Amino acid sequence: MRAVDVIIKKRDGNELSVSDIEWFIKEYLSGGISDYQVSALLMAVFLNGFSSGETAALTKSMIASGRSLDLSYISAKKVDKHSTGGVGDKISLILAPLVASCGVTVPMISGRGLGHTGGTLDKLQSIEGYKIYLNDDEIRSNLKNCGFVMLGQSDDIVPADKKIYALRDVTGTVESIPLITASILSKKIAEGADSLVMDIKCGSGAFMKDLESAKNLALSIRDTGRKLGIEVASVITKMDEPLGRSVGNFIEVKEVADILKNGYADYLLSDEMEIVFKLSEKMLLLGGVANNEDEARKMALSSLNDGKAYEYFLKNIESQGGNIKSIEYPLKYRYTGDIKASKEGYIKTLDAYKIGVASVVIGCGRNRVEDSIDNQAGIGIFRKVGDRTNKGDTILEIYCNDAESIEEAVKYCENAIEICDKPVVKSKSVLMEIL
Amino acid sequence: MRAVDVIIKKRDGNELSVSDIEWFIKEYLSGGISDYQVSALLMAVFLNGFSSGETAALTKSMIASGRSLDLSYISAKKVDKHSTGGVGDKISLILAPLVASCGVTVPMISGRGLGHTGGTLDKLQSIEGYKIYLNDDEIRSNLKNCGFVMLGQSDDIVPADKKIYALRDVTGTVESIPLITASILSKKIAEGADSLVMDIKCGSGAFMKDLESAKNLALSIRDTGRKLGIEVASVITKMDEPLGRSVGNFIEVKEVADILKNGYADYLLSDEMEIVFKLSEKMLLLGGVANNEDEARKMALSSLNDGKAYEYFLKNIESQGGNIKSIEYPLKYRYTGDIKASKEGYIKTLDAYKIGVASVVIGCGRNRVEDSIDNQAGIGIFRKVGDRTNKGDTILEIYCNDAESIEEAVKYCENAIEICDKPVVKSKSVLMEIL
Repeated sequence: MRAVDVIIKKRDGNELSVSDIEWFIKEYLSGGISDYQVSALLMAVFLNGFSSGETAALTKSMIASGRSLDLSYISAKKVDKHSTGGVGDKISLILAPLVASCGVTVPMISGRGLGHTGGTLDKLQSIEGYKIYLNDDEIRSNLKNCGFVMLGQSDDIVPADKKIYALRDVTGTVESIPLITASILSKKIAEGADSLVMDIKCGSGAFMKDLESAKNLALSIRDTGRKLGIEVASVITKMDEPLGRSVGNFIEVKEVADILKNGYADYLLSDEMEIVFKLSEKMLLLGGVANNEDEARKMALSSLNDGKAYEYFLKNIESQGGNIKSIEYPLKYRYTGDIKASKEGYIKTLDAYKIGVASVVIGCGRNRVEDSIDNQAGIGIFRKVGDRTNKGDTILEIYCNDAESIEEAVKYCENAIEICDKPVVKSKSVLMEIL
Repeated sequence: MRAVDVIIKKRDGNELSVSDIEWFIKEYLSGGISDYQVSALLMAVFLNGFSSGETAALTKSMIASGRSLDLSYISAKKVDKHSTGGVGDKISLILAPLVASCGVTVPMISGRGLGHTGGTLDKLQSIEGYKIYLNDDEIRSNLKNCGFVMLGQSDDIVPADKKIYALRDVTGTVESIPLITASILSKKIAEGADSLVMDIKCGSGAFMKDLESAKNLALSIRDTGRKLGIEVASVITKMDEPLGRSVGNFIEVKEVADILKNGYADYLLSDEMEIVFKLSEKMLLLGGVANNEDEARKMALSSLNDGKAYEYFLKNIESQGGNIKSIEYPLKYRYTGDIKASKEGYIKTLDAYKIGVASVVIGCGRNRVEDSIDNQAGIGIFRKVGDRTNKGDTILEIYCNDAESIEEAVKYCENAIEICDKPVVKSKSVLMEIL
């Protein structure tokens, strides 16, 4: 078999066989196929597509490139959650303790922020002492202890994904639905999840800009997951404005602690809690601890209400080496930038992409994987889309330790805001569910 | 500017600007852009196409990657000829002395055989002492001496083509009309040609299998040539059976010498002479030595008839260091393989591709650029399509120095032949002319 023949087959719009794909990935990992051949194939896949059979074969071959976690010692169903990435997206930090406190086992593997989006791992590492890499024994005792772990991906799991992702990033082949599908599912399956809830972001601050492509991704992940024996439930959610009341790392952890500690009362109507409850329903059903959505929602509400979710949150921090007292520490910043309303009216837009870029500018995120971040930097959100404002009210506030970057960040934030005279309807955050 | 943005632009079907293309090629040559980014762009070009403006910009950028030959000391129009590659294609060896003897200046740069096709350079190098690399002074004196030179491409001319072609070969992006166009025209323009006659082969033994793609290539070369100030005339010719009476290297040189020495009488009706005369017309018109096709054809015929073309052939061999006596040497081979007619009838097929592969098997050609060849190996063709045969008549004869390969070559040749009971019409070799 020659690499060029596999490339030509896909270039000409034909379906690759399972053995074509297996051989190609194996040869790539062992050095028999070059980056330039892989990138040509990736572009052909981007433009000519992959069937769900091809996507499943790619996913399987990627899983086979490394080791898989063995969580079979847990008899309960393991449910993971994955988000395609957004701004102010702290959902995982609320959701994991919430559903674990309802009895679902959650081995959650998260990523770092990249581009304008934040990453759960960066948020967790803003907690003093929190360890995101645990050995197999520690994972086992954590899952036993509080029902969930929150981990970074270790290098020996799906090494093919790391290599291929790095190549996609520089060859214009990131936004391919089959390639995204294989990248997500390979990691989730190798990490021992039985089922998966997908939060597929859609909008200006998301990688999927329109509902159509978000829906296609959901269907691709569902169909490929079925072929590989992992059950997937997807929720498409709005990502036009940042979620909740903060964007950053430690600032988001503090928001999460506040929500979990003080109950839902202030937040029930918030965009992020709407999504948290919807995803909780899915996870409790997939985890087999609730019989229907109503029951699931009630379980989640009461766990939040009676402080059980908060208890699990703290228990997890302690058992992963974190200092729970550090959560009460104030945010450490030297400079602030106030973005005030330029006129009276209603907030029409808080552009998630621009605010995401502003947060990267002040050090919350990274443009390259190797960039370092400032986990104390952040942006407070004082008005949401649909809120009324007087002229001069604070809409956004920037907290920052780098005097040079604040001016640029203020500009991005100012450009992110649109105020109009007429009332603006607050729309739902959950746009679509795909089972 | 980032390489990935240029790739994405083409991936999404947008037109690249001249500066996008200039920058991309320049950065690639200087090492700022990697092979894997170039191969992703090449695949996007293959699938989404290039406009004639983009193709012209690519051609220009490729020319700028190296040095150009300065032939401005010759006031006459310099006319080159290029074939897209076939089996038994010895046209250049006949054509160059023929049109030079009529007064056209021909600085001809040829290539090596690759895959199942032969290469003019390999044929020339089967002549004892023949030098295919000359310095600028030698080129000048040769052109003055006998009106034509036959050269290999030197490394400092269009180095971008060498790099890009090597990449295309292993990434499934060879058969792209804009990429083929840029590859051919960049070399011809850098080598000082004012106009170009293209012999675009079409059929089982050609890279272009159908008339439609051959025509598209002709139009692309014409339109791109116009933008760059080089006049192009294209002839699409049949490549379903090998041309003439032999396939190989020295065996083809001997056939050429025979044609030129003994006049056209035996050959006037042959497929290769039909093409030679058509291309001669074009070259004499482009070179400005004939006023119309009739006149051009008469000039070529009389030059062949009165031995002037043969005289130029010998003069060129001598002035490029070759031993003209060596042409009379017999072919040196140790083994023969006779392929006889299995029944009485008419030759329906002599598959050029299969006979081309057989010729590579016995050492006439190469599968990789670095393979060495046996310039004495060859295949004699004793019947052409349309000819009558008795059972047991020799159709093909293999001459070879490697006992191991002969069996495989015989099989390829046997499979290349179809004989039918009813008479078969001999069709024309020139399928279409595009001006």
